[in-house]
Amino acid sequence: MRLLGGIEAGGTKFVCAVGTGPEDLRAELRVPTTAPAETLARALEFFAAASRRDELTALGIASFGPIDPDPESPTFGHVTSTPKPGWAQTDLVGPLAAALGVPVGFDTDVNGAALGEHRWGAARGLDTFVYLTVGTGIGGGAMVGGRLVHGLLHPEMGHLPIARRDDDDFPGVCPFHGSCLEGMASGPAIARRWGESAAELPDDHPAWELEAHYLGLGLASLICILSPQRIILGGGVMARAQLFPLVRQKLRELLNGYVAAPAITEENDRFIVPPGLGRRAGVLGALALAERATGARAEEAASP
Amino acid sequence: MRLLGGIEAGGTKFVCAVGTGPEDLRAELRVPTTAPAETLARALEFFAAASRRDELTALGIASFGPIDPDPESPTFGHVTSTPKPGWAQTDLVGPLAAALGVPVGFDTDVNGAALGEHRWGAARGLDTFVYLTVGTGIGGGAMVGGRLVHGLLHPEMGHLPIARRDDDDFPGVCPFHGSCLEGMASGPAIARRWGESAAELPDDHPAWELEAHYLGLGLASLICILSPQRIILGGGVMARAQLFPLVRQKLRELLNGYVAAPAITEENDRFIVPPGLGRRAGVLGALALAERATGARAEEAASP
Repeated sequence: MRLLGGIEAGGTKFVCAVGTGPEDLRAELRVPTTAPAETLARALEFFAAASRRDELTALGIASFGPIDPDPESPTFGHVTSTPKPGWAQTDLVGPLAAALGVPVGFDTDVNGAALGEHRWGAARGLDTFVYLTVGTGIGGGAMVGGRLVHGLLHPEMGHLPIARRDDDDFPGVCPFHGSCLEGMASGPAIARRWGESAAELPDDHPAWELEAHYLGLGLASLICILSPQRIILGGGVMARAQLFPLVRQKLRELLNGYVAAPAITEENDRFIVPPGLGRRAGVLGALALAERATGARAEEAASP
Repeated sequence: MRLLGGIEAGGTKFVCAVGTGPEDLRAELRVPTTAPAETLARALEFFAAASRRDELTALGIASFGPIDPDPESPTFGHVTSTPKPGWAQTDLVGPLAAALGVPVGFDTDVNGAALGEHRWGAARGLDTFVYLTVGTGIGGGAMVGGRLVHGLLHPEMGHLPIARRDDDDFPGVCPFHGSCLEGMASGPAIARRWGESAAELPDDHPAWELEAHYLGLGLASLICILSPQRIILGGGVMARAQLFPLVRQKLRELLNGYVAAPAITEENDRFIVPPGLGRRAGVLGALALAERATGARAEEAASP
């Protein structure tokens, strides 16, 4: 049996899995993200054991960042300037590729999730869409014309500058920008502002109207720049399902009819959606990166 | 001799040209944008005459918008919901393709300019970059992974929501959004705010510091979402060359070191640049669209 391996490499835990897709996810390992050597050793042990039972054909790593996803770069496969203690300039791909002897696909956690949603979830059949996660941080991955967006580095959608609303004096929690999207609308921003976590606030709390306003501003920016066919909203904060209709309504108000697509102006409940893969979007994204690394579903080389 | 034809279809004038590139631009026609039938008839006459002298192999149209650039759509090739009198739902491609019997490439004026800069100008060798024009309006075209961005419709970068600065009470000139990027930083916004046009204001006027601030916010959003390798700033307002260093400085301040690419944080004078094709970016962009329509330099089909 030929299997794929995937690592959802998060700042608090690593989720490792082997399988071939959402209907066939086999062994899974969850380990806390401690020191790099220890965490990678435990992941390696898991995949080494799996590859004794079955043929492991490729590994995918969808990682917290910032990372270097450029295969041409000397630091390809590294987590780069993260403030997480011990993890700056850590090579994730090198040790695993050497020990397992398989191709390793590597991208941001959110680009991985976007690829997973494209392969098996809410973005099947689309070629231009965004996956945005709203949780401890805010981050986004995107596919444009069938390719994951990288460019100079990779997107940092959480750090979009946004306008503080006139009736709001919260300074924001981002240490770099204060009131960027993550600073105003992430889980920690909600908790700091209201004194209660996003999981605890009641459905009818005014927090949600304001949260929807700021997310609406972020989505309006995404639409003006990328013109996505769909926006997938995941992450812990979006587990509060009552946010979806509020965000859709705010977005309509903010765009004010300018982007004249019925998908946005009329029935936008298929335009702003939760992940099709739910909470498994991360690890399945890693599996999709592995599948792509086998070459079976490679992106075409750019040829303008 | 095999030539390409290009139309820079603007809201105030149509610029038509034949040639093969920037070093070989032959006949050129400039006509005011009057009624669609009249304007298209004059363009057609020009290309018909040119094709009696030489073989015209393809035509490119880089058009004001909004447009329908989707070849699968029944309204492909049309200007769609423009407020410009007489031009809403006007088919540009159909009549010209039928009369000239050549393939016609069609895209937004700014995507055309982006393609032209990629082919012959300031974006040669890049695969992910933005062309932003700041003039009567603000609009942007982008290439990502070697492909022009379309998605649901096409980007509308001028309508990015941005934050009004605390010391500013100007309401903005955008009829849809008031203080979006175009509402705050376009040529008409400058003229309305200061009572003098962008062409007349002296170099040391405080207008430029504020203009650079708003453009910096727009560029920060572009960087957070698209991670471009370069941003090209064109249009009449950017003809004021003293704006470039101000915008570069504001951008550094606004990102505050978060996007850790030396291209942005250190020497960003090669990151924020004027068009390599200068004021001919528009018509040469149309020529690049024509060249692509011949199939000689086609974009690859998406294959994720």
